[in-house]
Amino acid sequence: MVIMAENDAWIRLVTPDLAAPSLGDNTADVDRLVKGLKQRLGGRGVWVDFSLVKRLSRDLRAHDYCVEGAVYRDGDGWRLIDVFDGKEPKGVHGLSLDLGSSTLVLRLVDLTRGETLDEISFNNPQIEIGADILTRIHFAGREGGLVKLQTLVLDEINRKIGNLVEENGITRKSIVGMTVAGNTTMTHLFLGLDPHWICREPYIPVVNRPDTVNAREVGLEINPEAPVLVFPNVGSYFGGDLISGILASKMTEREDVSFLVDVGTNAEVVIGNRDWLMACAGAAGPALEGGVADMGMMAAPGVIDSVMIDPDTVAFTIGTIPSRDGSAATEGRGPLGICGSGLIDLVSQLFLAGMIDLRGKFVRDRCGERLTERDGIRYLIVVPAEASGTGNPLTLSQIDIDGLIRSKAAMYTILTTIAKTVSIPFEDIGRFFVAGTFGSYINPSSAINIGMIPDLPLSTYVSLGNTSLAGATMALLGVDAQKSLFHIRDQITYLELNVNQAFMNLFSAAKFLPHTDRSLFPSVKIWDGAVPAGEKIGV
Amino acid sequence: MVIMAENDAWIRLVTPDLAAPSLGDNTADVDRLVKGLKQRLGGRGVWVDFSLVKRLSRDLRAHDYCVEGAVYRDGDGWRLIDVFDGKEPKGVHGLSLDLGSSTLVLRLVDLTRGETLDEISFNNPQIEIGADILTRIHFAGREGGLVKLQTLVLDEINRKIGNLVEENGITRKSIVGMTVAGNTTMTHLFLGLDPHWICREPYIPVVNRPDTVNAREVGLEINPEAPVLVFPNVGSYFGGDLISGILASKMTEREDVSFLVDVGTNAEVVIGNRDWLMACAGAAGPALEGGVADMGMMAAPGVIDSVMIDPDTVAFTIGTIPSRDGSAATEGRGPLGICGSGLIDLVSQLFLAGMIDLRGKFVRDRCGERLTERDGIRYLIVVPAEASGTGNPLTLSQIDIDGLIRSKAAMYTILTTIAKTVSIPFEDIGRFFVAGTFGSYINPSSAINIGMIPDLPLSTYVSLGNTSLAGATMALLGVDAQKSLFHIRDQITYLELNVNQAFMNLFSAAKFLPHTDRSLFPSVKIWDGAVPAGEKIGV
Repeated sequence: MVIMAENDAWIRLVTPDLAAPSLGDNTADVDRLVKGLKQRLGGRGVWVDFSLVKRLSRDLRAHDYCVEGAVYRDGDGWRLIDVFDGKEPKGVHGLSLDLGSSTLVLRLVDLTRGETLDEISFNNPQIEIGADILTRIHFAGREGGLVKLQTLVLDEINRKIGNLVEENGITRKSIVGMTVAGNTTMTHLFLGLDPHWICREPYIPVVNRPDTVNAREVGLEINPEAPVLVFPNVGSYFGGDLISGILASKMTEREDVSFLVDVGTNAEVVIGNRDWLMACAGAAGPALEGGVADMGMMAAPGVIDSVMIDPDTVAFTIGTIPSRDGSAATEGRGPLGICGSGLIDLVSQLFLAGMIDLRGKFVRDRCGERLTERDGIRYLIVVPAEASGTGNPLTLSQIDIDGLIRSKAAMYTILTTIAKTVSIPFEDIGRFFVAGTFGSYINPSSAINIGMIPDLPLSTYVSLGNTSLAGATMALLGVDAQKSLFHIRDQITYLELNVNQAFMNLFSAAKFLPHTDRSLFPSVKIWDGAVPAGEKIGV
Repeated sequence: MVIMAENDAWIRLVTPDLAAPSLGDNTADVDRLVKGLKQRLGGRGVWVDFSLVKRLSRDLRAHDYCVEGAVYRDGDGWRLIDVFDGKEPKGVHGLSLDLGSSTLVLRLVDLTRGETLDEISFNNPQIEIGADILTRIHFAGREGGLVKLQTLVLDEINRKIGNLVEENGITRKSIVGMTVAGNTTMTHLFLGLDPHWICREPYIPVVNRPDTVNAREVGLEINPEAPVLVFPNVGSYFGGDLISGILASKMTEREDVSFLVDVGTNAEVVIGNRDWLMACAGAAGPALEGGVADMGMMAAPGVIDSVMIDPDTVAFTIGTIPSRDGSAATEGRGPLGICGSGLIDLVSQLFLAGMIDLRGKFVRDRCGERLTERDGIRYLIVVPAEASGTGNPLTLSQIDIDGLIRSKAAMYTILTTIAKTVSIPFEDIGRFFVAGTFGSYINPSSAINIGMIPDLPLSTYVSLGNTSLAGATMALLGVDAQKSLFHIRDQITYLELNVNQAFMNLFSAAKFLPHTDRSLFPSVKIWDGAVPAGEKIGV
């Protein structure tokens, strides 16, 4: 009986019909099992790794030849992962991993039912070596550095797998497959591959399309024979996390043209449809993620994630991220800082309310007493000390705004450049997918208001959340998804962003709110002292 | 340039055309190499093992991307074994191994030219555990026993590989493939697989068709990624050495029906042609190999390997195995004992000269003074003490003769039984191949004279020498030979010898010299006191 419902399952649990050996049928143990599995799997080849051959006789006899075999698809055939007691079937599990440089998300999936059982998010312990990727690449070049980086992340993953195993009452042995999506450097460090040439011209990874490896070979403490599929990359600067995002967005199944954007320190942009794909990545600056602003913080309970300003009264309505149990985290105390999406909201609202001008400069008349100055730099008091959770005022400086504007201008310029390269006007874009956890918090209308993304109908914008994890989970479940994955990788044309005069001209024009060419943003209605606020925000 | 001449080469050395990475072509190192190899290999898939992925970047850069890649055929594609300096090509090598329970023979082959470079023969160090296979299987069941047995043989093989490497001025790294033919227990011990069930009903090996493994996985000190093909078996009692023999004999390419016989403690017999194959194995008793006779010895310099008796004078002409340098080893001293083929010769000549009767009993009148008696057992003095190399007389007892007759009767009965099973009369046998080093020393006419093998024209008999090694070498060189090998394995019908009344009747009839039914052996002419000796021997 084939338990997995889907025909395209990567991993299957099958119960071969094995007769115990007899003088009339003295086929060897391994060959007997292979024959039985083949019968269940439509006659295709079944391979057994040597380390399994060594112990299969014992396992088969321990279960009186009544076993379930976990197999995974490999090319035209199957490979055995392990055998389990066929009399008391307990099911098998898989893991999908979003291998981020700051945050890892590990999902536990019941492969028998194809359902997510649990999910756990944790910091990448390589941060102790360096928050940015370059620092880690340089560290990898030191004596023992690569091993240290790999060990850090693997140990932490193995610990978290232990937590998942314990909390869900399963065994490590029952975890028979894993998929890993991450950027090129992260996957190299995960596999223990030297990232030395990733950051050095001409920027060559060790491998673009790693073959499936065994958990044992990587050092993952799950079933030792579990296949581990590490997502392929297009190059040093376009990794498996983004290919996973393309897969999850299903933009390659659409006839109309979509954008897929992953907003972060790097703005990674893909444009295409079912026939073609073009991608590029460019530095957008860290301002978009909020980390560099004075009061900038990672998204967390008690952090500002939305701002409304009444254009008539310039009164602020501030929203914060609730604590995990759903209660307002600021109950009893004020907000602690602002996250990236809150910052975009804030600047958008300041602009619509006329408190900053189209260059992003504070308008004294509109800001009133909120505006202060220290060491020649202007600050806007967003939350006064007495209402803040830190005891100090939460302020936004002119420098913070300038940084955000440079970042949003970079993003818009990259979008313009890639769309021009393929001669697709923005209005022909059918879907604008926003990938990544951070992106999912961004209010598209705010992003339009500041001219970060094109002024398309709001229904065009689709926030996908953690697409890296979503794509990895798809590949964990199905071979078709894996085929799409490699097809996507092979299909992408990577556009090397040439920061030339043309690019700089576009960038300069985009350094205004929303843009020097107002006709590009017809929906953005700035306060004119008469129109009620509600209509202006356009949410 | 593909260096290997043959198109069906298992292992190839190819030189991909690799451009160094550039901004215009920043394909990753592994993918770059794979692409280059694919171009040379007709577009078929090339897989790279993870342990190679870890070091390929370094190797490619060390040789400025000018490399030779050694690959081996795996299914429809190729697997990379290693890369070598492309500027100073040094060629690659392979090993074929005849893994005998007493003797191992290791052959070093230049894979670039397909030529044998060297060959080395040595004792199986597992003999220190036990000379016979059953003792080793029981020992394997003890704590640490299996590891000990595997280590013994691997360490010795690795030492001998070291000798070959040194004497031929090559490197272990250049040895990129190996084939191993041995009986089922020997191959299990070689791979570290538990032989426990091989000797216990219903006699199940762990595996019939082991997949190719890496040298690294087995513990062979050659190139760690070198593929090691261990020959498949048909069951516990019909091993890869015999399948190798069938391959080497090419009997499966013939239209007429052949016998293939491996003479030893077990008589292993194959009958068939290009359309069908039947095999059986039965205990022939150790007498044929000469080891159990009073003066029996392994074949070695100074040991009797041929005997002529003048039927008129009953004078003995005794031949011994020369020493390795070609000089007569008995020069200055007499023979030391008798080997199996010498024993068959001796008994044959005694029978033809009328010194033993058709029951194998000594004829006092013909034996004369050579006949003595001790403890009620009759002995024939073959070499008197003064002419012997041991200082004692070399004697043949009635018990020795009885043992040999039982063994030859078993062999003849097995041949008769299998031929009857497939309804092939002996006269339809086109070729009678004798496999194995021991078999190659047997004088067919002597074997016919004692009724051990059928009375066919002498031209039917073909001695093949070490067919286990010959077949292993064929498989090392060509994929077609490997395909034949697995085809042979799958094609064999194994005949379980049923020792019932019919078998015992045949056996009883065969316990005479040459047989109770003299019409079966028309060529055997026994001394009648008138015919000159030369015509009787029929050599």
